[in-house]
Amino acid sequence: MNIRIERAKNLKEKPEGALGFGKNFTDHMFVMDWSRDKGWYDERIIPYGPMVIDPVAMVLHYAQETFEGLKAYMGKDDNVYLFRPEMNARRFANSNRRMCMPEVPEDMFIEAISEIVKVEKSWIPTGEGESLYIRPFMYANQSGLGVDEADSYRFMIVLCPVGAYYPQGVNPVKIYVEDELTRTTVGGTGFVKCGGNYAGSLAGQVKAQKLGYTQVLWLDGVHRKYVEEVGSMNAMFLVNDTVITAPIEGTVLAGVTRDSIISLLKSWGYKVEERKIEIDELIEKGKSGELKEAWGTGTAAVISPIGELFYKGDKVEINDFETGELTKKLYDTLTGIQWGNIEDKYNWRKIVK
Amino acid sequence: MNIRIERAKNLKEKPEGALGFGKNFTDHMFVMDWSRDKGWYDERIIPYGPMVIDPVAMVLHYAQETFEGLKAYMGKDDNVYLFRPEMNARRFANSNRRMCMPEVPEDMFIEAISEIVKVEKSWIPTGEGESLYIRPFMYANQSGLGVDEADSYRFMIVLCPVGAYYPQGVNPVKIYVEDELTRTTVGGTGFVKCGGNYAGSLAGQVKAQKLGYTQVLWLDGVHRKYVEEVGSMNAMFLVNDTVITAPIEGTVLAGVTRDSIISLLKSWGYKVEERKIEIDELIEKGKSGELKEAWGTGTAAVISPIGELFYKGDKVEINDFETGELTKKLYDTLTGIQWGNIEDKYNWRKIVK
Repeated sequence: MNIRIERAKNLKEKPEGALGFGKNFTDHMFVMDWSRDKGWYDERIIPYGPMVIDPVAMVLHYAQETFEGLKAYMGKDDNVYLFRPEMNARRFANSNRRMCMPEVPEDMFIEAISEIVKVEKSWIPTGEGESLYIRPFMYANQSGLGVDEADSYRFMIVLCPVGAYYPQGVNPVKIYVEDELTRTTVGGTGFVKCGGNYAGSLAGQVKAQKLGYTQVLWLDGVHRKYVEEVGSMNAMFLVNDTVITAPIEGTVLAGVTRDSIISLLKSWGYKVEERKIEIDELIEKGKSGELKEAWGTGTAAVISPIGELFYKGDKVEINDFETGELTKKLYDTLTGIQWGNIEDKYNWRKIVK
Repeated sequence: MNIRIERAKNLKEKPEGALGFGKNFTDHMFVMDWSRDKGWYDERIIPYGPMVIDPVAMVLHYAQETFEGLKAYMGKDDNVYLFRPEMNARRFANSNRRMCMPEVPEDMFIEAISEIVKVEKSWIPTGEGESLYIRPFMYANQSGLGVDEADSYRFMIVLCPVGAYYPQGVNPVKIYVEDELTRTTVGGTGFVKCGGNYAGSLAGQVKAQKLGYTQVLWLDGVHRKYVEEVGSMNAMFLVNDTVITAPIEGTVLAGVTRDSIISLLKSWGYKVEERKIEIDELIEKGKSGELKEAWGTGTAAVISPIGELFYKGDKVEINDFETGELTKKLYDTLTGIQWGNIEDKYNWRKIVK
């Protein structure tokens, strides 16, 4: 790629105090356009700022849009690190295939991320648990109201310094098991990061929050009994000494954190079952005390302990609403690797060169 | 409402020849903003043109977006007519409730449409089958990457003169029955007009078109056997002397054309069954000759005859791939009422005052 760089004339003040998630954006952004004739063209890093969009840009009507999420970490060696960016590149290509959108080749995807991160190196925060969140995204910007593949798309990357995703930190959260609304089925879009999944699941999240729960646990859309995702995270359950998590079979997102956690667990000798588990079984195991720990995994929050499940009137507390030992160890190990405080046996960290 | 009108300084040339669908837009558009503090505010009719959007406007990432579609017709009495706009107003409110978006009150919705249509009266085409397509739509324009209800939304209306939706006209189309990809389930968003539904179903449409079919017929996402929608239209089947169509039970869009057609059919003495019908049964009825006619209904195309169904290797031709008598009568009657050539017994037409 031949990336043109146009530097911002006035740089923003860096935010101070708690960073939150997705609130402050850096001085520049990466933009690249695609047309059916030209393919990808005009790759550029330009000052972050508002864009022009037509009222009938197809994305505003038919939601052809996909995204990714990963983080850059400031190493103590003053190198900048990414965590398994090739996994995001592949998943993004998968998403775009399902949504009939052109793919961004893996090497271009990673090069674009590396270049914008280098330009914004001074924005990578260095406080405890802080990192630079990277949001690649793409949308149909062709004008027109016919429902069809678009002839033009825009791919962009924006960056924001982030602290912990949940303001509560790594404390356990209460989860509402949704039994009316559904998220997806095999054959749908549940396994891809497209906007429509998030828009559709918002009603469940809002309902859960109104009832005093932090997030919603989704059941499968066909039988309404198999456990799938929690909010926008993969969900894992330690039952006796086995960790159970939903399989990647077309409904659940193939989380990078999920995959990394499974590797860690296996290396520690845990049995990991990627299988369907019925909510009734899970609630039962909760009542009998066999459900020892539970947590959600995702790039933004890394690990989020689950302290309570509510399902059809049944309330189950997990590990006395304390963060479990294994949950804590997983969080410490994975963030330790990500921030460079623990040996990276798996070669997951990639230096941004 | 107190709508501010800012007239365009330079008016566009009206398009000549075949209008197509969703290609040419008029000189003005209606815009109104919503914030959690103020509610709806700054309702205005301004020159049609590009807008400014932030790269992290939530709609570009999480697809909180809904829309409607209806038409304005130029009467021979020089009055402008809408067709059952209150149905669109109600459905739009339904969509927004499901998507956790603020509602546009019914009277505001209709007033906004009426005002922009009056300003653009000269754009209403008068050729055979031509009308002014009205596209109200709404999206989350708050900046930020947290997944949550937005604090600000924009509601807009754009207009485009249209001819027939399908360039082939009211000729029968070949339909591919999709047996791998799914569209929705009860508890999902299938019954609302949100962008995500259209983005998710594009893969089915593209697949069907590659195989030589015009559109896809969706089966239910749970059992994968009950007939739901065809493309973005409701589907109806004349089996012997009974018309069968999928019920409005949470997966299928409550089409205004669907509802109107059902009223016409009942008034003519036809038995109408709003019920689940298995695709196997339908294919069987097609082979035995009991499936006399089939058609899709929607605002854009009005009625689109189905001449062939393809399902898992089985091909069924309907009415010798000719537009059926009843299909033709329905099309003529409904368009006759819409364009004011037939008595409007149901008081469906509303004069734009």
